[in-house]
Amino acid sequence: MLGRTYEDQNCSAARALEIVGERWSLLIIRDALFAGITRFADFQRRLSVAPNVLATRLDSFVEHGLMERRQYSQHPEHYEYVLTDQGRDLQPVILALSRWGDRWVAPEGPPVLYVHSACDSRVEQLIHCSTCGEVSDPADIGTRPGPGAS
Amino acid sequence: MLGRTYEDQNCSAARALEIVGERWSLLIIRDALFAGITRFADFQRRLSVAPNVLATRLDSFVEHGLMERRQYSQHPEHYEYVLTDQGRDLQPVILALSRWGDRWVAPEGPPVLYVHSACDSRVEQLIHCSTCGEVSDPADIGTRPGPGAS
Repeated sequence: MLGRTYEDQNCSAARALEIVGERWSLLIIRDALFAGITRFADFQRRLSVAPNVLATRLDSFVEHGLMERRQYSQHPEHYEYVLTDQGRDLQPVILALSRWGDRWVAPEGPPVLYVHSACDSRVEQLIHCSTCGEVSDPADIGTRPGPGAS
Repeated sequence: MLGRTYEDQNCSAARALEIVGERWSLLIIRDALFAGITRFADFQRRLSVAPNVLATRLDSFVEHGLMERRQYSQHPEHYEYVLTDQGRDLQPVILALSRWGDRWVAPEGPPVLYVHSACDSRVEQLIHCSTCGEVSDPADIGTRPGPGAS
């Protein structure tokens, strides 16, 4: 939680960070999205994250609708965590973070390439104006109040 | 810092989160990017963030090259924090987070609209395949090792 200031931040980026801004959250989502991981032990092995932290994050994802908890074994009782549409929809966030990291903090080159499965070509994110096409200069993007502005 | 596991995570998203994944970091960058904020007191007033936390984040941004610290007054001595190209390049991350938040956690509609300044039309992020054009289905995106893979 961002604490007492959450209410002051009527901003969708802030609300998104409330849910996925904690340490490990986006790396858990990354492994679920791109490596198809669903099981606690697999997340833990890949991330070397403390079990209590992982359990807290997964529970939070279920609570917020990013994952569904499904039983896959009765004896012993085991569950897996499967991304919902809401969770899968974080893919552009992971791609944007990775692109920035590739550009600025990957001196040996990108560790991972994101590719279009059909043709194995790299994908990129473009910012597109709904009226006039691609916006190549970030300085050309501004803001105005939306319907949910306070 | 992600702690001892940083080295295990040869991933640009993880490295990006090392720098901008702490609470408040991306909201500070958001205000610098879209509201043109540069001064400590202005960040503090807009975010209601504790001064020590804000100071730590700004110092970290300067250290990592996301902002430059510039003196704008000698008596009294005052500094402002100005985004570098590396800092401004986080814009797609803010846009991606906001889009997700608008879609999933903004029941009253987007608080803020991101628009192309030239024509006041909304912008959107598209995922584009470098060979065959737009990729509309997130499930069509996969990964393969890049030049920086370990």
